[in-house]
Amino acid sequence: MEKAPRESQIIMTELVLPNDTNVFGKLMGGRLLYWMDIAAALCATKHCNAAVVTASVDNISFENPISLGNAVHIEAKLTRAFTTSMEIHLSVWGEDFLSRQRYKSNEAYYTFVALDSDRRPIPVPEIVPETEIEKNLFDGALRRRQLRLVLGGKMKPQDAEELKALFTQSRP
Amino acid sequence: MEKAPRESQIIMTELVLPNDTNVFGKLMGGRLLYWMDIAAALCATKHCNAAVVTASVDNISFENPISLGNAVHIEAKLTRAFTTSMEIHLSVWGEDFLSRQRYKSNEAYYTFVALDSDRRPIPVPEIVPETEIEKNLFDGALRRRQLRLVLGGKMKPQDAEELKALFTQSRP
Amino acid sequence: MEKAPRESQIIMTELVLPNDTNVFGKLMGGRLLYWMDIAAALCATKHCNAAVVTASVDNISFENPISLGNAVHIEAKLTRAFTTSMEIHLSVWGEDFLSRQRYKSNEAYYTFVALDSDRRPIPVPEIVPETEIEKNLFDGALRRRQLRLVLGGKMKPQDAEELKALFTQSRP
Amino acid sequence: MEKAPRESQIIMTELVLPNDTNVFGKLMGGRLLYWMDIAAALCATKHCNAAVVTASVDNISFENPISLGNAVHIEAKLTRAFTTSMEIHLSVWGEDFLSRQRYKSNEAYYTFVALDSDRRPIPVPEIVPETEIEKNLFDGALRRRQLRLVLGGKMKPQDAEELKALFTQSRP
Amino acid sequence: MEKAPRESQIIMTELVLPNDTNVFGKLMGGRLLYWMDIAAALCATKHCNAAVVTASVDNISFENPISLGNAVHIEAKLTRAFTTSMEIHLSVWGEDFLSRQRYKSNEAYYTFVALDSDRRPIPVPEIVPETEIEKNLFDGALRRRQLRLVLGGKMKPQDAEELKALFTQSRP
Amino acid sequence: MEKAPRESQIIMTELVLPNDTNVFGKLMGGRLLYWMDIAAALCATKHCNAAVVTASVDNISFENPISLGNAVHIEAKLTRAFTTSMEIHLSVWGEDFLSRQRYKSNEAYYTFVALDSDRRPIPVPEIVPETEIEKNLFDGALRRRQLRLVLGGKMKPQDAEELKALFTQSRP
Repeated sequence: MEKAPRESQIIMTELVLPNDTNVFGKLMGGRLLYWMDIAAALCATKHCNAAVVTASVDNISFENPISLGNAVHIEAKLTRAFTTSMEIHLSVWGEDFLSRQRYKSNEAYYTFVALDSDRRPIPVPEIVPETEIEKNLFDGALRRRQLRLVLGGKMKPQDAEELKALFTQSRP
Repeated sequence: MEKAPRESQIIMTELVLPNDTNVFGKLMGGRLLYWMDIAAALCATKHCNAAVVTASVDNISFENPISLGNAVHIEAKLTRAFTTSMEIHLSVWGEDFLSRQRYKSNEAYYTFVALDSDRRPIPVPEIVPETEIEKNLFDGALRRRQLRLVLGGKMKPQDAEELKALFTQSRP
Repeated sequence: MEKAPRESQIIMTELVLPNDTNVFGKLMGGRLLYWMDIAAALCATKHCNAAVVTASVDNISFENPISLGNAVHIEAKLTRAFTTSMEIHLSVWGEDFLSRQRYKSNEAYYTFVALDSDRRPIPVPEIVPETEIEKNLFDGALRRRQLRLVLGGKMKPQDAEELKALFTQSRP
Repeated sequence: MEKAPRESQIIMTELVLPNDTNVFGKLMGGRLLYWMDIAAALCATKHCNAAVVTASVDNISFENPISLGNAVHIEAKLTRAFTTSMEIHLSVWGEDFLSRQRYKSNEAYYTFVALDSDRRPIPVPEIVPETEIEKNLFDGALRRRQLRLVLGGKMKPQDAEELKALFTQSRP
Repeated sequence: MEKAPRESQIIMTELVLPNDTNVFGKLMGGRLLYWMDIAAALCATKHCNAAVVTASVDNISFENPISLGNAVHIEAKLTRAFTTSMEIHLSVWGEDFLSRQRYKSNEAYYTFVALDSDRRPIPVPEIVPETEIEKNLFDGALRRRQLRLVLGGKMKPQDAEELKALFTQSRP
Repeated sequence: MEKAPRESQIIMTELVLPNDTNVFGKLMGGRLLYWMDIAAALCATKHCNAAVVTASVDNISFENPISLGNAVHIEAKLTRAFTTSMEIHLSVWGEDFLSRQRYKSNEAYYTFVALDSDRRPIPVPEIVPETEIEKNLFDGALRRRQLRLVLGGKMKPQDAEELKALFTQSRP
């Protein structure tokens, strides 16, 4: 079975409240990671119609902090499905409605595994990217997966062909 | 100024409550990421005696999920300080007191930046590793930093000498 | 100044967690009212680019309860702007990703007032409905406003011309 | 079986904490609606000694916002029981202990349905109003019920005799 | 100035939700202590019309645990005012509306100090007990205060005349 | 079976967030009591490898309030085990990382009872104190237990030999 990324897309909007903020009145990184995990979990569950658990989170860089009282927009979309796992791309925007400013806060990749009721991994539907952006995300998923395996100690760096090319190609 | 990692170590223990769990009664990944961010922020603040904000989170792999009613042990320790940023290593263990089982759940690296009251980056004290483990974490910090820069699009893969060696060395 | 309803539309998605549920494992009405208020407040703030406070909530009927672990979809859209107040239409859907069922839970109208920093009401931009649905919501807003005024004791029933017609017209 | 309203009255007092407030430091409408739902649910459960779910919320007008650090007093009382449903009247007061001011914030009517363990509606005891206020609330319950049915599309406006009278009577 | 205990009495009702419970589905002691502190703080603030902070909590024995879904009734009443501090008596009842059982859970004494805006202790109005129960609580307050001072290391046991009598009187 | 106090020691670190604070920006007593209960429960569970419930809390005096943004350090350690109950000593420190100040906030004794799955008390392992501090805490546990029984109305003051000595000994 095949599905398109748009079929399981999740759009989440949250309001930054006092308890979500640090001493600067900015959204704490951990609170954002929590919301992103929920959005990604909903997206993965919608794709595979099964229970899922977080398998991994890729490198995340926090660029623009989101202020108290601002809106947090989180968009979660599946990039690629592997046998029993799914990679979800998250894009986070802050928005200050008073000054009408919308700014990119960060983006991330979360990976989830689909499980049956006995918590054993089960196969998930394949993904068929439709737009150019989706196709690029789909293609990059292999490289990110190799990186995850290398960083998780489950693949030797020398065997990660996709990554290797990246580091050894001659400069243009 | 120099400080040892043990001077800013943070030990946090939490109890997994119903609202922290997924349909399997296991701790949700996002809740754990939230606690880890708090532990790491406290550790970084203690080291530099200044306000800090989360700059990045490295790849995290969730190995053993922690069950409802179990304890979550989080240990946060500084590995290395750069000019205005600090890398914190987090180690997470679950513990089931009834069956007396203690199990590794995951580990991670969070990076924080020290800020003055106008939110401008300020210098932080250097770190002097003391134990063998601390020295290894200290040495690996450069490589992880290069990876962060490459993944964040701030360094070209070909310029990441530490990483490059990893992928190009001939097999033993 | 005029704006279209789509310019300030808010889409919120939440996950029903244990603490949001009653003894039947269904989302409590009060928790849903809380989320709807946040979604509506964000929508109103986005339209008028000013701080807002909840002025009133219209009759809400809870049709299909949303289950633990299901997703809650809330869509908030401005129907009409009055001098300093805005009516927001909320539409709530539950979704069970495992059984692939999406069901209407309820809908509602919240009214907000725009305030300046001294908490005095300020004028808000007018709304120009674009779709048929938006035009119907726009037209019905007058009648709902009269009902609010009558129920709030600020207008005599006999003066509510729009409502009066509804109750006195001869049957077809 | 018959019961008096006082037998199931609920008095709830809450403290407005930072996370309950908007940018003006005033209690958010949604948080208040959440507390009111809990108070009303407890009142309905106490009357019928069965599990209940929120069926509807009537028009609510937010008059005086309650400030951070102030107390919120919520009084919930049954006005009338229908076959399987109960109407609860809620009265909300704010109180600033420092300036010794107690002010009416709003009032509302919530309706609940009693359910057995299979979630099927079950009969509830009748209510016998005792005070003048209770009798007035009891009498008005029929009219509010017609309004709910009309607004919920379950009764034609022309058939709502109680409401019709209200809108068509000649002025005094 | 003098005030009666009933003038500052606080009645709080809460619903035990999943996140408030231990593995037995019973209200956790710590959550109850949290609610009691809020109820007592509101009571003390109402009496002295000033900001207050918790100074001490007396021995509390948890008798009957309160179940998930049950109501928690907390009644807070001032027993006696000292120069700048106030003792509040808390009485906690659980109630299972389905089985119509109301049971005493525990009782406690919290002490609060009134502070001005610079956090310096300020005098509070005296209390004049009215009922027999209030008079007994008023009389016992001196003894409990001595016990607090002895346990806090601020009074020698031998100087605690009220307590001494208790332990040295010959048996009847 | 015997165990040492260090085997079940729990170290908990928390960050004071806005919703944990009173109008002075200081940690509310009730929130601290909540955290202490969790820390003590984890400690007791770890010692007896069984489910536990809070039986009592001894007199607690709040000395130095902990500020918003500061760290809260809670150390929980078993002092003595009785047949089916355990006394846990809690020591609470606040720490302001910016000014490098660490200050004692308060200390307390919580008592827990071990229960089997039918909620019947079960025997717990004995404790063998190792350090001087642990031995003192072990010795004092008997006296504190008598005080609990006297205060709980389960022992006559005249029969509390340990306490009696305290109040009747001649001054030095």
